[in-house]
Amino acid sequence: MTKKVSNRKPTKKHQRSNNLFSVIIAGGSGTRFWPLSRLETPKQLLHIGSHKKTLIQATVSRMSPVVSFKRTYIVTNSGQVESINLQLLSMTGLSWDKQFIIEPEAKNTAPAIGLAAVYLRRIDPKAVMVVLPSDHVIKNNRKFHSAVLLGAQASGDGFLVTIGIKPDKPETGYGYIHCGDKIKQGVYHVKEFKEKPDRERALKYLQAENYYWNSGIFIWQADTILRAMKKHMPKLYEGLVKIDKAMGTERVQEVVKTVFSKLKSESIDYGILEKAHRVALVPVDMGWSDVGSWNALDHVLPVDGDKNVKKGNLISIQNKNSILYGGERLIAAVGLEGMIVVDTPDATLICRRDKAQEVRKIVDILKKRGAREYSTHRTMLRPWGSYTILELGDRFKIKKIEVKPGAKLSHQMHHHRSEHWIVVAGTAKVTNGDRVYDVHPNESTYIPMSTKHRLENPGMIPLQIIEVQNGDYLEEDDIVRFDDIYKRKTQK
Amino acid sequence: MTKKVSNRKPTKKHQRSNNLFSVIIAGGSGTRFWPLSRLETPKQLLHIGSHKKTLIQATVSRMSPVVSFKRTYIVTNSGQVESINLQLLSMTGLSWDKQFIIEPEAKNTAPAIGLAAVYLRRIDPKAVMVVLPSDHVIKNNRKFHSAVLLGAQASGDGFLVTIGIKPDKPETGYGYIHCGDKIKQGVYHVKEFKEKPDRERALKYLQAENYYWNSGIFIWQADTILRAMKKHMPKLYEGLVKIDKAMGTERVQEVVKTVFSKLKSESIDYGILEKAHRVALVPVDMGWSDVGSWNALDHVLPVDGDKNVKKGNLISIQNKNSILYGGERLIAAVGLEGMIVVDTPDATLICRRDKAQEVRKIVDILKKRGAREYSTHRTMLRPWGSYTILELGDRFKIKKIEVKPGAKLSHQMHHHRSEHWIVVAGTAKVTNGDRVYDVHPNESTYIPMSTKHRLENPGMIPLQIIEVQNGDYLEEDDIVRFDDIYKRKTQK
Repeated sequence: MTKKVSNRKPTKKHQRSNNLFSVIIAGGSGTRFWPLSRLETPKQLLHIGSHKKTLIQATVSRMSPVVSFKRTYIVTNSGQVESINLQLLSMTGLSWDKQFIIEPEAKNTAPAIGLAAVYLRRIDPKAVMVVLPSDHVIKNNRKFHSAVLLGAQASGDGFLVTIGIKPDKPETGYGYIHCGDKIKQGVYHVKEFKEKPDRERALKYLQAENYYWNSGIFIWQADTILRAMKKHMPKLYEGLVKIDKAMGTERVQEVVKTVFSKLKSESIDYGILEKAHRVALVPVDMGWSDVGSWNALDHVLPVDGDKNVKKGNLISIQNKNSILYGGERLIAAVGLEGMIVVDTPDATLICRRDKAQEVRKIVDILKKRGAREYSTHRTMLRPWGSYTILELGDRFKIKKIEVKPGAKLSHQMHHHRSEHWIVVAGTAKVTNGDRVYDVHPNESTYIPMSTKHRLENPGMIPLQIIEVQNGDYLEEDDIVRFDDIYKRKTQK
Repeated sequence: MTKKVSNRKPTKKHQRSNNLFSVIIAGGSGTRFWPLSRLETPKQLLHIGSHKKTLIQATVSRMSPVVSFKRTYIVTNSGQVESINLQLLSMTGLSWDKQFIIEPEAKNTAPAIGLAAVYLRRIDPKAVMVVLPSDHVIKNNRKFHSAVLLGAQASGDGFLVTIGIKPDKPETGYGYIHCGDKIKQGVYHVKEFKEKPDRERALKYLQAENYYWNSGIFIWQADTILRAMKKHMPKLYEGLVKIDKAMGTERVQEVVKTVFSKLKSESIDYGILEKAHRVALVPVDMGWSDVGSWNALDHVLPVDGDKNVKKGNLISIQNKNSILYGGERLIAAVGLEGMIVVDTPDATLICRRDKAQEVRKIVDILKKRGAREYSTHRTMLRPWGSYTILELGDRFKIKKIEVKPGAKLSHQMHHHRSEHWIVVAGTAKVTNGDRVYDVHPNESTYIPMSTKHRLENPGMIPLQIIEVQNGDYLEEDDIVRFDDIYKRKTQK
């Protein structure tokens, strides 16, 4: 029994290093997972491959035995901060307010990583960054932790370390890394990075056994990557120096914005790794998937005897090798083979599996049309609970609003609409102008236009109300906030 | 110019015969058109192949140059009477109350036709019945009218006449009629009825050119068909004699019920036509389709350059030979070939075209589950307008109710629920206990449990209200009616 020491889960103390930081890149808009992903709920915020955690929750949680929550930073855009903060708060019980590094615009991975490196080097000159995409699935956490720690060690010798995944099929959708000589146990020189191959070449790589998938997970000292940028991406480096100097001043946001506006979009792979000399590879077989499209769902979810992934309210007859991904609405599928069906309350996708990449085109069309299905879902989560749009009329809008026990919406006012509230479950505490009163199930109240009001749930069970809005303009941005316990700027 | 006299549309007077009656068979539950068809809205009540008219409206309307509305009878079950009456009322402006012949249970076509024959022979001993399925599409009305009139003439010579359709493809889904010797211009003896053939045999029939599809449209004297039943279906005839004797008495409904409960299900084809001697065929090429399943939709709706039928809120990319039939919800389809997609607010069907017959299985499963999607739609039409279920909760239900100008719901009461009404468009006249008052947009009112109430639209534009029901039991059958201008028994 005592022989298997190396298989034991190491204690947290043993694993965590004092210089290690997680840098989670959460910039993607996740167009490839439409209609489940929308502009306001990109892929990393979705439950894909797990009921319990969203992809970004799983990413943060997975790293926690190695890097504490407090040393984990999220690089994202301002539009996603509130949603990510809400998800991480609900998982950890901690506020993540201070752990966001905001990109003013998306410029691919090199600028995002450069910005994080400058930021972390200020906190700790010897900071070691573990750079992680926020939307990948990893099944074997133990192997993942071992690889990260091996990489962290190698980063101490000045290596830029990349985690390589042992291929189990001739995948044409990933870049490959040609593995070179051994540096030490489990760590190798990188001979060459290879672009996404055709099928024939992918088969060769698979057979050769010294090619690995490029996972996009990297480990290096903040200082090492910045020095590499100075050499290989001098313009980026110049901008980062400006940002570095502005840090701690009031100007910093403005400087980041100006610098980013002038940067070229560039990936860290192309900009640095393919050019740098001391690049190391830690190969690992850890059940990894980047879940790049709906077509990859059977890599991360169980399949039935006919190789179908099935979820939701389905009637499935004679289907094979298909992804049937529904929710509460009824989907009946008959005789499908190699198809993807994804259902959401307001939109359904039906797509041949080998056309999964075309889903981007749909999102482009919706964006051009200014369609609601591009940006939001019918149900939107908020720190205080959620709301669901039941009906949109000419001069009215019907919402179901659910407020968590103890939660309260902001003290607010609308210029263009009045609201009827009917309580259908729980008890509402309502501030309506100067009056404060309770409203119980089967009771209603009326909030006139331009009247300051607030809705809260003083009770122990969820509060459910039906809101009927009347007015000439019924968008979410008609809101004046006077007080908000969640300190939000944009959301209701 | 005057040479083409035969192509002129004959006047109504010229065409109508004094003994002709239409008998429209509307018994089908239309399971093959789920999810558009439901138990409460079978195929004949749907707009298939026409925006303007439902299939039964089109059937009635198509016959009207030959047989007046007042001589048109509908054979159906009691569950469909109100819906059919509503559709025919709205099309013709006439009440059809007295023109229903109710089957107490479905026993296939022979008993239904026998019942109608007894009924019509009482009205006119020389009655000639044109028996028509309620859910077929016919594109060329002129040819149809000519065929019916030819058939009516032949029926005077004691023939049982069937309309045969000239095949334009080797269809395996229809029965065929082998055409015999000519009786007179356009009318032929029937040599033999043929069961649905396999593909090889269907090809032979097509090439032989003297085989026709059996359309299910028949013309005969009521007396002739009853005499044929006496000979070939003596048990049915015996029952019909009992019904005949009870007619005009109070017992009639009870007798029909008793007789039908003992009858065998039998088609008129198998029970009579295949056995009778004087059977005639009127062949015609009139753009006929029985629209037997979703797969037949491209026979009756236009197709695009890739042979797709497209309807509704679609994004269609690289699809071929597919039926894409949506509504207001967004459907995005990519790379489909030979597929059927049908979307409704609460259920979506995705089915390979060659599996369209399997849709019945889905309906069977839903029926067994007691699923709502088996029987009703989210939006239900009523004589006063319509309602849409927006949300079903644990102890609440949200409806959008639309009331036509001048229309009123019944004076009613519920034992188990109270109702909040918020007017969002138009003006409501509300009777609430002893009070009668108007409610305007952005105003609400409350109907307590067990309080007599009535909703009406006194205005000139549609009234829209949002109804929030609260209670322990929220089904449609919790309703006590005190007055109803539409004299309904079962509906709200």
